[in-house]
Amino acid sequence: MTSREGILLVVSGPSGSGKGTVIGRLLERRNDFVYSVSATTRAPRAGERDGVNYYFISRDEFEERISAGMMLEYAEYCGNYYGTPKKEVYDRLAEGKNVILEIEVNGAMQVREKCPDAVLLMIAPPDFATLEARLRGRGDNVPEEVILRRLEAARYELSQLTIYDYIVINGNNQIDDAADRIIAVADAERSRVARSGDFCERFFSCEA
Amino acid sequence: MTSREGILLVVSGPSGSGKGTVIGRLLERRNDFVYSVSATTRAPRAGERDGVNYYFISRDEFEERISAGMMLEYAEYCGNYYGTPKKEVYDRLAEGKNVILEIEVNGAMQVREKCPDAVLLMIAPPDFATLEARLRGRGDNVPEEVILRRLEAARYELSQLTIYDYIVINGNNQIDDAADRIIAVADAERSRVARSGDFCERFFSCEA
Repeated sequence: MTSREGILLVVSGPSGSGKGTVIGRLLERRNDFVYSVSATTRAPRAGERDGVNYYFISRDEFEERISAGMMLEYAEYCGNYYGTPKKEVYDRLAEGKNVILEIEVNGAMQVREKCPDAVLLMIAPPDFATLEARLRGRGDNVPEEVILRRLEAARYELSQLTIYDYIVINGNNQIDDAADRIIAVADAERSRVARSGDFCERFFSCEA
Repeated sequence: MTSREGILLVVSGPSGSGKGTVIGRLLERRNDFVYSVSATTRAPRAGERDGVNYYFISRDEFEERISAGMMLEYAEYCGNYYGTPKKEVYDRLAEGKNVILEIEVNGAMQVREKCPDAVLLMIAPPDFATLEARLRGRGDNVPEEVILRRLEAARYELSQLTIYDYIVINGNNQIDDAADRIIAVADAERSRVARSGDFCERFFSCEA
């Protein structure tokens, strides 16, 4: 049984987990997955396009949408709002697409409360040494204090693992394996009895 | 995260679901799955081999094994015992293999009670008309009463769907799709946070 609705798949992972790369690979390979574009009040950076990287909206508009219950989750970060517009997510799920929300732990908790059917998945590096090597390997110009802050953030995020349903390890040079695993999670979730509606009733409904 | 232990995968399905064919296809494709051979007290049929089709044991021996708690599940059917030897299943799981138990609904319930970690999966035909066509198509010599009994049994088995975790539809000529889906279920289950042990603790244990 494949559920007609898609799966709402919340994907989190610390900086250095490679989650963006893994999600990109997955989207290249399967057109039944779509990426949920967030809304933000921060200004577009060079090359960023409205509706592709983010929906760029004003602070007033963002706050109106919060009041109207139009955001599935949101957070304020460095003085700007970031959040997930609810309607687009629900429309794509109804079309049968699996929708990927790439959000951090606190946003994931908000989604869990509002959508008990959502599936929460954490992407993690295999171990601390790998995480540190990746964060330090990004360039020589990253100040030590930024690296330490990212490692501390990773510690917090991984400490919240128990609210997640699945953990997928993204080892070095194993992007395809990690993407495969996320695909397996979505495919399996679509076969859950709990998502099958009343299969038994439908099965026998065509009986003479 | 992939759990080190394999998944205990209980597969049920009515006569006509094609579960044997689907499991056979899966085993051809993935050598990290093994099929659990049942024990029985019935006599071997022509061509059946001990340890391959069944472990053929005496009634006394079977009852001793029940008393000693060595059977994971068992049932008496037409005057013969059928059951799953516990040790072999656990040994293979510990080796990291996914173990497939092809058993009926009542056996599945016994396994669920003894092994809360087991994953219960039902294979079903897409609809009643397909089921009936398959049962009638098996040969002209099957008496009508046997077909009606099988259809009634299917009704009972599918009515127990809610104790199962997953339902996989085996449509006509879709054996590979059904096998893929079962593989996805096992792969996803191995990535469950609940099976990952204390990932977070291990993650940081190599930190200076």
